[in-house]
Amino acid sequence: MQAMDIEKVNSMDFGEFVDVFGNVIERCPLIAAAVWSQSPFSNLEDLEKHFFAFIDALPQSGQEGILRCHPDLAGRELQQGTLTAESQREQRGAGLTSLNADERLRLAELNAQYRARFGFPFVLAARLSDRAAVPRELARRLHCPPAQELRTALGEVKKIGHLRLADLLGAEQT
Amino acid sequence: MQAMDIEKVNSMDFGEFVDVFGNVIERCPLIAAAVWSQSPFSNLEDLEKHFFAFIDALPQSGQEGILRCHPDLAGRELQQGTLTAESQREQRGAGLTSLNADERLRLAELNAQYRARFGFPFVLAARLSDRAAVPRELARRLHCPPAQELRTALGEVKKIGHLRLADLLGAEQT
Repeated sequence: MQAMDIEKVNSMDFGEFVDVFGNVIERCPLIAAAVWSQSPFSNLEDLEKHFFAFIDALPQSGQEGILRCHPDLAGRELQQGTLTAESQREQRGAGLTSLNADERLRLAELNAQYRARFGFPFVLAARLSDRAAVPRELARRLHCPPAQELRTALGEVKKIGHLRLADLLGAEQT
Repeated sequence: MQAMDIEKVNSMDFGEFVDVFGNVIERCPLIAAAVWSQSPFSNLEDLEKHFFAFIDALPQSGQEGILRCHPDLAGRELQQGTLTAESQREQRGAGLTSLNADERLRLAELNAQYRARFGFPFVLAARLSDRAAVPRELARRLHCPPAQELRTALGEVKKIGHLRLADLLGAEQT
């Protein structure tokens, strides 16, 4: 998809807007569809601010719900080819599509432990990580207190959203 | 899908739950994923109550966002075959897949007027309607005050969700 400027974004009807921004938050087109209510936007930061404010204003169950819409890293959906295009690209970029059998098994075990402990999957901005760091970070976060881990995981959702928005709007990825 | 009892529902991990109930609210798996936080459920009514409470607690932008995740009736997505399975079945059941060219054009015009006026698509529980009633109801609701129309449309979302839940749980459809 070609990068666009904010005037183009502000000219979109809600159907176009959800088509383009519906997966900024993984599998949560509802959030993009809600953010459209706040248009026009002054720039990328303003647009992003509304995505994040919506997440922050949800009750805890809704925030957990966002996390539960994310796939495991190097999990079943990657094996089956059912990831979203964005997630597929991000996991491939982190080298998670070329793990050996031992690495896949190790991650599958850690993912299962994490899901059982917290009631949501391990979410990490894979583009800022790599195949060696992912299991290390997963093993570390597995031992964090649940309330802290929820905050950490939502922070990763926002990093992912920031990078996806920056891609769409052709901005510097800071 | 075979009907299931509430014990089966309460035994599901969040992945299974979202697979099964993710489209009770059209294209909003986030809502099912949030509702899982409230398990176990005592029965269908209890489960449904949590879906509806989540909708009612959203800010207005989020409620509009839910509506914007719905397709037009007899619209582009029906033509292109990109409806969800549930929506396809419901629109077919109402006779909307067998409109003639004049009927399709009339509905397309009314849908466009409605979207322009309210900023969300016309949502109606198609299973409780038919091909003659849909354009009549659309033409009527087109002239309602926006705040009233938002409430009416969310009421239709709940009727649709009720019927989909009753299907999944094999309950009497009242």
